[in-house]
Amino acid sequence: VRCAVTGTRHFSSSLAHREIRSIRELPDRVFATFDETKTHELLALHWPTPPRNVLITKKERSPEITSSLTELAKHISSTYPSIGLILESEVAAELHEQLPFPVYTIQDENVADYAEKVDLVATLGGDGTILHASALFATCQNVPPVLSFSMGTLGFLGEWRFDEYKRAFREVYMSGAGVRYGSNLFDELPANETQQAQSKQDISQDLPPEWASLRGKSMGQGRSARILLRNRLKCQIRSADGAPTSPAPTYAMNEVIIHRGLSPHLAVVDVLIGGKFLTSAVADGMIVSTPTGSTAYSLSSGGSIVHPLVSSLLLTPICPRSLSFRPLVLPAHVPISLRLSTHNRAKEIDVSIDGIRQNHGLQQGMEVHVWGEGVRDRDGVWRGGVPSVVRGNRDGTEDHWVGGLNGLLKFNYPFGQA
Amino acid sequence: VRCAVTGTRHFSSSLAHREIRSIRELPDRVFATFDETKTHELLALHWPTPPRNVLITKKERSPEITSSLTELAKHISSTYPSIGLILESEVAAELHEQLPFPVYTIQDENVADYAEKVDLVATLGGDGTILHASALFATCQNVPPVLSFSMGTLGFLGEWRFDEYKRAFREVYMSGAGVRYGSNLFDELPANETQQAQSKQDISQDLPPEWASLRGKSMGQGRSARILLRNRLKCQIRSADGAPTSPAPTYAMNEVIIHRGLSPHLAVVDVLIGGKFLTSAVADGMIVSTPTGSTAYSLSSGGSIVHPLVSSLLLTPICPRSLSFRPLVLPAHVPISLRLSTHNRAKEIDVSIDGIRQNHGLQQGMEVHVWGEGVRDRDGVWRGGVPSVVRGNRDGTEDHWVGGLNGLLKFNYPFGQA
Amino acid sequence: VRCAVTGTRHFSSSLAHREIRSIRELPDRVFATFDETKTHELLALHWPTPPRNVLITKKERSPEITSSLTELAKHISSTYPSIGLILESEVAAELHEQLPFPVYTIQDENVADYAEKVDLVATLGGDGTILHASALFATCQNVPPVLSFSMGTLGFLGEWRFDEYKRAFREVYMSGAGVRYGSNLFDELPANETQQAQSKQDISQDLPPEWASLRGKSMGQGRSARILLRNRLKCQIRSADGAPTSPAPTYAMNEVIIHRGLSPHLAVVDVLIGGKFLTSAVADGMIVSTPTGSTAYSLSSGGSIVHPLVSSLLLTPICPRSLSFRPLVLPAHVPISLRLSTHNRAKEIDVSIDGIRQNHGLQQGMEVHVWGEGVRDRDGVWRGGVPSVVRGNRDGTEDHWVGGLNGLLKFNYPFGQA
Amino acid sequence: VRCAVTGTRHFSSSLAHREIRSIRELPDRVFATFDETKTHELLALHWPTPPRNVLITKKERSPEITSSLTELAKHISSTYPSIGLILESEVAAELHEQLPFPVYTIQDENVADYAEKVDLVATLGGDGTILHASALFATCQNVPPVLSFSMGTLGFLGEWRFDEYKRAFREVYMSGAGVRYGSNLFDELPANETQQAQSKQDISQDLPPEWASLRGKSMGQGRSARILLRNRLKCQIRSADGAPTSPAPTYAMNEVIIHRGLSPHLAVVDVLIGGKFLTSAVADGMIVSTPTGSTAYSLSSGGSIVHPLVSSLLLTPICPRSLSFRPLVLPAHVPISLRLSTHNRAKEIDVSIDGIRQNHGLQQGMEVHVWGEGVRDRDGVWRGGVPSVVRGNRDGTEDHWVGGLNGLLKFNYPFGQA
Ligand SMILES: NC(=O)C1=CN([C@@H]2O[C@H](COP(=O)(O)OP(=O)(O)OC[C@H]3O[C@@H](n4cnc5c(N)ncnc54)[C@H](O)[C@@H]3O)[C@@H](O)[C@H]2O)C=CC1
Ligand SMILES: NC(=O)C1=CN([C@@H]2O[C@H](COP(=O)(O)OP(=O)(O)OC[C@H]3O[C@@H](n4cnc5c(N)ncnc54)[C@H](O)[C@@H]3O)[C@@H](O)[C@H]2O)C=CC1
Ligand SMILES: NC(=O)C1=CN([C@@H]2O[C@H](COP(=O)(O)OP(=O)(O)OC[C@H]3O[C@@H](n4cnc5c(N)ncnc54)[C@H](O)[C@@H]3O)[C@@H](O)[C@H]2O)C=CC1
Ligand SMILES: NC(=O)C1=CN([C@@H]2O[C@H](COP(=O)(O)OP(=O)(O)OC[C@H]3O[C@@H](n4cnc5c(N)ncnc54)[C@H](O)[C@@H]3O)[C@@H](O)[C@H]2O)C=CC1
Repeated sequence: VRCAVTGTRHFSSSLAHREIRSIRELPDRVFATFDETKTHELLALHWPTPPRNVLITKKERSPEITSSLTELAKHISSTYPSIGLILESEVAAELHEQLPFPVYTIQDENVADYAEKVDLVATLGGDGTILHASALFATCQNVPPVLSFSMGTLGFLGEWRFDEYKRAFREVYMSGAGVRYGSNLFDELPANETQQAQSKQDISQDLPPEWASLRGKSMGQGRSARILLRNRLKCQIRSADGAPTSPAPTYAMNEVIIHRGLSPHLAVVDVLIGGKFLTSAVADGMIVSTPTGSTAYSLSSGGSIVHPLVSSLLLTPICPRSLSFRPLVLPAHVPISLRLSTHNRAKEIDVSIDGIRQNHGLQQGMEVHVWGEGVRDRDGVWRGGVPSVVRGNRDGTEDHWVGGLNGLLKFNYPFGQA
Repeated sequence: VRCAVTGTRHFSSSLAHREIRSIRELPDRVFATFDETKTHELLALHWPTPPRNVLITKKERSPEITSSLTELAKHISSTYPSIGLILESEVAAELHEQLPFPVYTIQDENVADYAEKVDLVATLGGDGTILHASALFATCQNVPPVLSFSMGTLGFLGEWRFDEYKRAFREVYMSGAGVRYGSNLFDELPANETQQAQSKQDISQDLPPEWASLRGKSMGQGRSARILLRNRLKCQIRSADGAPTSPAPTYAMNEVIIHRGLSPHLAVVDVLIGGKFLTSAVADGMIVSTPTGSTAYSLSSGGSIVHPLVSSLLLTPICPRSLSFRPLVLPAHVPISLRLSTHNRAKEIDVSIDGIRQNHGLQQGMEVHVWGEGVRDRDGVWRGGVPSVVRGNRDGTEDHWVGGLNGLLKFNYPFGQA
Repeated sequence: VRCAVTGTRHFSSSLAHREIRSIRELPDRVFATFDETKTHELLALHWPTPPRNVLITKKERSPEITSSLTELAKHISSTYPSIGLILESEVAAELHEQLPFPVYTIQDENVADYAEKVDLVATLGGDGTILHASALFATCQNVPPVLSFSMGTLGFLGEWRFDEYKRAFREVYMSGAGVRYGSNLFDELPANETQQAQSKQDISQDLPPEWASLRGKSMGQGRSARILLRNRLKCQIRSADGAPTSPAPTYAMNEVIIHRGLSPHLAVVDVLIGGKFLTSAVADGMIVSTPTGSTAYSLSSGGSIVHPLVSSLLLTPICPRSLSFRPLVLPAHVPISLRLSTHNRAKEIDVSIDGIRQNHGLQQGMEVHVWGEGVRDRDGVWRGGVPSVVRGNRDGTEDHWVGGLNGLLKFNYPFGQA
Repeated sequence: VRCAVTGTRHFSSSLAHREIRSIRELPDRVFATFDETKTHELLALHWPTPPRNVLITKKERSPEITSSLTELAKHISSTYPSIGLILESEVAAELHEQLPFPVYTIQDENVADYAEKVDLVATLGGDGTILHASALFATCQNVPPVLSFSMGTLGFLGEWRFDEYKRAFREVYMSGAGVRYGSNLFDELPANETQQAQSKQDISQDLPPEWASLRGKSMGQGRSARILLRNRLKCQIRSADGAPTSPAPTYAMNEVIIHRGLSPHLAVVDVLIGGKFLTSAVADGMIVSTPTGSTAYSLSSGGSIVHPLVSSLLLTPICPRSLSFRPLVLPAHVPISLRLSTHNRAKEIDVSIDGIRQNHGLQQGMEVHVWGEGVRDRDGVWRGGVPSVVRGNRDGTEDHWVGGLNGLLKFNYPFGQA
């Protein structure tokens, strides 16, 4: 999979107001890195140079969220003037008249351009909005960091309340700014000094002006944003002869599902683990989920809750016609195949990825081939996944995941009157 | 609901071969009664006079089953010449050329005619075929006894193996023949003698010739067929103002289901018990099932297995977005309402009865109103339900339901090598 | 089982203070009846004559509850002077000094005396206190009505808040007072007039003075208390040769359980339904529960929630070593046997009834034989069960069971922030 | 934890028959290493020099298994004369008279000696026997490779049939023999050549005579045994002030459990994840399980099945009094604490490790602290866990774990007649 930038583009220096420009005019993407720290198990976000291109996505059809987006966009534009703001095309069309600065967008729905330009994503909405943002990078190995604001809509994946947006954005923007420019400003030193040393070598000693200008403000640049790298899964449809039907796999944040859909009859699906036949499932459908997705559809279907840091894939049946189909948790690196049996009554079955029904279903003999995304490469460098900016409180007593289980999912909710 | 016969009709005395006749030409229906016995907990089937109109249904598109139907039809026609054979219209069209006697069928798909004529139903196929036969009587309070042969297709509801058809049919045909004609031929005397005495009064003392002619044969008429009255549920769609959208309720043998269908979003359904608000379910769908249906879709959705003699309704959610929605078993006489919430994202939701998706869905504010069918009237007379002829062995060591759990559903299947 | 009173006894007319007397000195028990009504599905409590002997039980070791008991006892004694108060012997010993009237108790822990004298039970505590009160009548077919106050301790079975005790007690005391003394005072007329007519005949027209003296007060005697007859189960231990080890069965309100207890090894238990072998369970234990008990241990073990009006028994395994042991709901009248297999590693297994471990365990080959208690006799008269006085609000919008599911068990508790 | 050998000891050259000797007389332990391979996801067993000290354990009280042990011992002794055989003390006492060579055993039940001497373990029995063998190394970081024969007793962990013992033992004995002595004999080359290179340096070029003498035989030494490193968990009891009550943690292969045991009342247990409060569980007990243990008690309690290669810990409640306690799968490196609440009714609660009830329970305020064992050290070397010799067939079509799910646990066992 290549996400690399092609073609030429120029940074437009005369920023006209109320204008929609092509995303291709923006400077090249700045890639963040993610470092282990000594103080907690999450990763520390580190920008080599200040991020410049920020995509903001939002939930549809909510006037309230739309006005929040405007507020956020104006704040970024005025406080961080070097940043170019990217909106999805309909949002750009809807809002550019109200924004006193140009906005950038893709052309001809060429979503691959996002991967080439976006340094950072901010989402305003619920889990669906985050899934949607993730889907914009569904064929890309490097998703930019995602800063998500949950907007009234309850969400398990959303991290920040919108009223925290100034602090949140600043924290992300400055994250790791100090680390490579001398000093021990950075309070969460990378675990692996040598790894750091290596990457420091070709970097100048002077803090870039975008960061330097923000230094005096209350929150030191030493603090880094905490990143949870949410493992995605990769899936690819294969035809009956085993050939992939698409050049590259699609990434999913929650899950890939096959479901009988409108067919009144139970689906018959052969399941293979690591290429070996496991079982023939007779069910409404089958879910292969990431740990992140374990609190989504898989949970409703009876799956266990799996912490996002457990490298694994969940295989959870939907309404299986069996007393003995217990959900499975499998190693992320072993591929799972769901093959529509020739015994299936209907010729085709629906496929959905992260809640989006795919245009093409699965025909008898065809299979969905799924495997986990590695988030660490051979040299131990963290990459891939959906780098989610986690909201942490200072004293570390709060854990977002635990908080979500208790506060949101009402995990082990105590019996009683209240 | 009236299922009574209207209009005049004549028994055609000149039976032409290879002919399809109107079911309306058949004599009036003979209604069986069901009596408690001293020896077991099932009911004894009792014909006041020999049954005359027999409907045979079969699974579609199975040449093997079609040839079994032909075999059965020929056997009945030759051994029980007074019986008129009824087939569904397509089956009649397909087969009448091969049958050396006329067959009867409904006209213009007027299924209500079945209820007015059919004394007994024989089904050849799997559970789906039994459900289909039951659906032919979906608006009728009195389903005729159903004699089901499972045909290779594994089924939980099917009782008899096809190779037993001669014994099975004779057992049903003769069932209770002795009871009202003096003598203690009947080995399973009704529990309630007085009840019997009453109905005996206007019946002549002489065994009808159809029965008398079969007397000498090996199996005495004293033996009665065992009936399991499978409670159905009744359901009716109500519009937002509470008015029913159909004049009469529809009966279901397994369950009524509402399901999000192709909508990618979770359904939001308000559940009322006895008219009182219970909960608002966020789920793929909801099932209201009979005990018979507890081994069908409800089982796949995590419901308990409920014995068909427990008078109750099951409320089982399909993939609920909740950690705390445990399936419920409710009294059969308390109505359950499933009302599509105005918070539901889609305007409409699918409704299915016994596996058949209904033409009209449920719109926001509308509800499916469900309650159990009583199988015993105010005077203690057993009626209603689907009277299923149960296969029992002589020594009573075998129980069909237990056999089905173990043999078919692999209930508590022991761990181990075999 | 006989619970009738034998022997002579005299009502002591000189009531000495601070005295403990024998329960045998109290007048004979007054048996309430339970009538169907037109307005709701519960039964109406009806006293033929005013109740006289009231047992109050309480949770142990709670000073607060003890003082509530004192308050209740004083109220009853002053407002209903014809009532004799019964306490359990330790409670009598603990409290009689503080009570300005005599209290009655059993002697030599002869619990059978309760059944012969107690007209009404009031409990102060949680579910455990109700179970304990029910256990005092564990060999008796007619449990007196139980009025339960939940005392801070959360309980699913408790109905009334203690601060309602005056209204609650009066409602129970007067219940049905008007029905047999002319007039249409009784707002919830029995469904079956003839049944009532019969029992009216030998009753005088004049309201007994105990009731008449209370007439003028705000709450009319027309109102009747609502009774939920909670079906119990009966169980009996049988030795390997099938002989019962006790003369009479024991009744349970929640459940009977067998459990491996301290044995580290899985128990092996053969299960029979209606005398026929169902399965051999390998598990920590097995539960046979009433519908009332479906929200107790069975719920924790994965059983469905069964409404108390569904006549049934639940068979729920505890940690079964099987993927396919789904909980079962069986007809109340079909006996269930749990037989300790000769393959069980330990020689004996624990038996518990309503949370009380029995002194004698079950040895290999022995069985616990369980069947449901009927709550309606051959003539349609309601009797048996634990007659629980249900708290209903006037407008009938509240349903206690539904309220308990939602308020207490957090059934389908909605996801979200609150 | 140190498992290193202390003190001097001599190899006894005059091996007397029918003699029990001290394990301390045996030569020092040979530590196997485990290398990644290119052909499969398991590890390849590699002995630096031929193993010399072999412990054989067996299930108790099975004469058949005892005679198998004798057969195996004789085979090893005659085919591999340089091997010293170690038996548990009772087994040694029981069998040494029948064995024509000396056996070694520990003295004074000083189990720590096993860790210092045993190169390889062979078990004869079921899963319990493997758990028992593993428990002999419960305080040791390096468990020797375990070769398990399942003996009639069905087992999920057992790998080999006893009749394969000659091939199996030879495969293990020779495993990796070729790898460090030049040549490309080893058909499954380590993935990481450099890692190998390093460890090769101080090893001579000549194959040791024990291996050389076996070379000519049919099975080449090139083939290596496949090792599944089963992650254990570590647990330590901590007193209310947080201090460990034992100097070193105990390792478990399946799980650590706390259970109310004989107390009739529900246990109240506070659960902390990574030191942060998760929830207060009200239940019969709590399980913290390894992935290996996911098919043991956790499965019976409703947990998901987790593949042994998923680095994780399972938190599964036993009969929780909650509708919303879904089992959790947590990262292996985050510690879980189960702290007996001061609200618990009983003062103490039982603790069991791998099915063995511990002598000391947990008192109020005390906690069981559990965390996963890493099986790869900082330098990427595989170590720790229980190195289980997996039986693989040549063509790789068979997967032991999948085979166990289907064959043994009857996973998704198909409905139907057979
Ligand atoms: N995920 C699931 O379990 C689904 C189940 N169904 C069930 O299928 C029924 C319709 O049956 P078909 O038209 O044959 O559809 P189908 O061809 O999809 O087969 C349904 C399966 O359910 C079995 N079945 C039906 N009723 C049963 C009962 N009462 N007890 C035990 N097994 C039973 C049949 O033998 C067959 O194996 C519906 O009433 C519904 O209960 C329908 C859709 C999905
Ligand atoms: N029966 C069910 O539980 C169903 C669940 N879904 C889930 O919905 C997702 C799509 O989300 P939307 O487009 O917003 O659909 P939606 O509007 O139907 O909402 C799905 C719900 O799932 C929640 N959710 C999504 N991802 C989650 C996660 N990883 N952890 C916890 N909660 C999560 C959302 O907050 C929302 O409440 C799918 O990926 C699928 O997992 C979709 C259909 C049915
Ligand atoms: N209700 C239950 O399921 C209970 C399970 N156990 C389990 O038994 C284990 C101790 O075993 P034994 O001493 O043999 O006790 P045991 O004689 O009671 O047998 C336990 C059963 O679990 C099986 N087993 C053990 N470990 C397993 C694994 N990792 N995967 C699949 N099956 C496994 C054994 O083959 C045996 O069938 C404990 O570690 C615990 O996991 C113990 C008590 C109750
Ligand atoms: N793991 C579990 O869930 C266990 C449950 N129990 C249950 O406890 C009962 C004995 O109660 P206690 O002596 O108070 O023991 P306990 O003090 O251990 O409390 C049992 C809990 O169950 C509740 N409870 C009892 N009966 C109930 C019912 N019918 N519906 C809903 N909740 C109910 C009580 O309010 C209390 O919260 C037994 O009959 C058994 O059902 C007993 C042991 C373990």
